Amino acid sequence: MTTARRHPHAGLFVTFEGGDGAGKTTQAALLDAWLAEQGRTVVRTREPGGTEVGVLIRDIVLHHRGDVAPRAEALLYAADRAHHIATVVRPALDRGDVVIQDRYLDSSVAYQGAGRVLGRDEVRDLSLWATEGLLPDLTVLLDLAPDAARARLDADDKPFDRLEAEKDAFHARVRAEFLELAANEPDRFLVLDAAQAPEALAAAVRERVTALAEASGGVGRAG
Amino acid sequence: MTTARRHPHAGLFVTFEGGDGAGKTTQAALLDAWLAEQGRTVVRTREPGGTEVGVLIRDIVLHHRGDVAPRAEALLYAADRAHHIATVVRPALDRGDVVIQDRYLDSSVAYQGAGRVLGRDEVRDLSLWATEGLLPDLTVLLDLAPDAARARLDADDKPFDRLEAEKDAFHARVRAEFLELAANEPDRFLVLDAAQAPEALAAAVRERVTALAEASGGVGRAG
Repeated sequence: MTTARRHPHAGLFVTFEGGDGAGKTTQAALLDAWLAEQGRTVVRTREPGGTEVGVLIRDIVLHHRGDVAPRAEALLYAADRAHHIATVVRPALDRGDVVIQDRYLDSSVAYQGAGRVLGRDEVRDLSLWATEGLLPDLTVLLDLAPDAARARLDADDKPFDRLEAEKDAFHARVRAEFLELAANEPDRFLVLDAAQAPEALAAAVRERVTALAEASGGVGRAG
Repeated sequence: MTTARRHPHAGLFVTFEGGDGAGKTTQAALLDAWLAEQGRTVVRTREPGGTEVGVLIRDIVLHHRGDVAPRAEALLYAADRAHHIATVVRPALDRGDVVIQDRYLDSSVAYQGAGRVLGRDEVRDLSLWATEGLLPDLTVLLDLAPDAARARLDADDKPFDRLEAEKDAFHARVRAEFLELAANEPDRFLVLDAAQAPEALAAAVRERVTALAEASGGVGRAG
C-alpha cells in the first residue's frame, strides 16, 4: 500500500530491537547519555504505549487478550504506532532531535512472523501505512544466542519443563526472523552480538551513529 | 492487500447505507420483522461499536477527537470492524442467519472520500484487510436529495448560517461518494430514493432480498 522510504528530516531516528533480556534498555541509555554530552536533544520513547492514546489502546489489547480477533489486535497496535509516530516521533525528527526508540516495526514483523497468525508482509505493509512509510535511519539488533538468552532470563535455575521448551522454540523463531530482516536491509541494520560487554556494544553503536551523522552533517551541534 | 470477494456462507449479509435521517433504522426494522415472519433468524447490528471491544475503541476516538492522528483514527475504526466481523457477523453468517447491519465499509469510504483526509482506495483496502475481504450480499443505499435531507433534519427551521452551508456542502459530497460507489458495484447495491414512503421502500428491499435468497436456495426455511 505504501512504499517504504527514509523520511527526509533534520534529526536521526534510531531503534533498538532484539529479544527480552538482550540489553536494549541499557544500550538506549548509554547512547542517550553520549548524545546528550555532544549537545544533541534526545527523545527516548517506546512502543507500544508511548502516548496517552497508546496507553488506552494497550489497555484494550491486554485486558481482552485472547478475545480480540487477531486482525483487530494487529490494527490496534498499528493505530498506537500511527498516533505515536505522528504526534511524538515525526515532530521530534522535524525539530532535528535524535529519537531513540525501544522496539518498532521490526518487532511487529518478527513476532508475527514467528507466531504465524498473520503474514509478515501484511504486518509490515500495515505498519508502513500507519507511519506513512517511516523507517529508522539506524536499527540496532541486539542478537543473543539461545543459550546466552536462557542464562540471562533463567538465573533462578528452575527445572526445564515442556512450556519452557516451547518458549525456547518460539524465541529461536523470533531470533531467526530478526536476523532475516537484518540480512534484507544491511544498510539500515547494525547487528551486534549481545553477549559482548555493554561498553563494547555501546562503542560499536556510537561508531555507526557518528558515521551516519557525519554523512548528514555532523553529530554534535555543540561539538 | 486483500482481494474483495463474497464470502461463501449459508446466511445473507445486508447492509444499509446513506446519510443521517435517510431512514436506515426504519428500513432495517421493517426488513427484520418481515424476515422473522418467514422464520429466518436475524442478527441486527451496527458499526461502529457493535461489540464490547468496539465500544472501548469508540470511546478512545470520541473522547480524544481532534487529538488522534488521522491514520490512527482510521486504524481504530478498522480494528473495531475487524473484531465485529470476526466475532459477530461471520459466526452468524456461518450459522445461516441473516445479518442486517447499519453502516459498513461503504460509509467509511464515502465519509473519508468526502472529507479528503485519506485516500478512498486506502480506506477500502484497510477495511477489506480487516474483514478478510467480506462484502455484503446486498447493500441498500437510501439516497436522499439535499433538499429533502435538509427538510428532515431541520424541522425546527432555524436560520441558515455559514456553518449550515458548509454542512450542506459536506453532505452533498458524501451523497455523491455513495452514488459513485453504487455505480461501481451495481450487482451489490440497491439504490432507492429515500423520499418515498417507508412501505414502498420496504417492498423494494423485500423484492431484492427474495431474489437473492431464491438464487441461493430460498428465503424462508419455515415458509
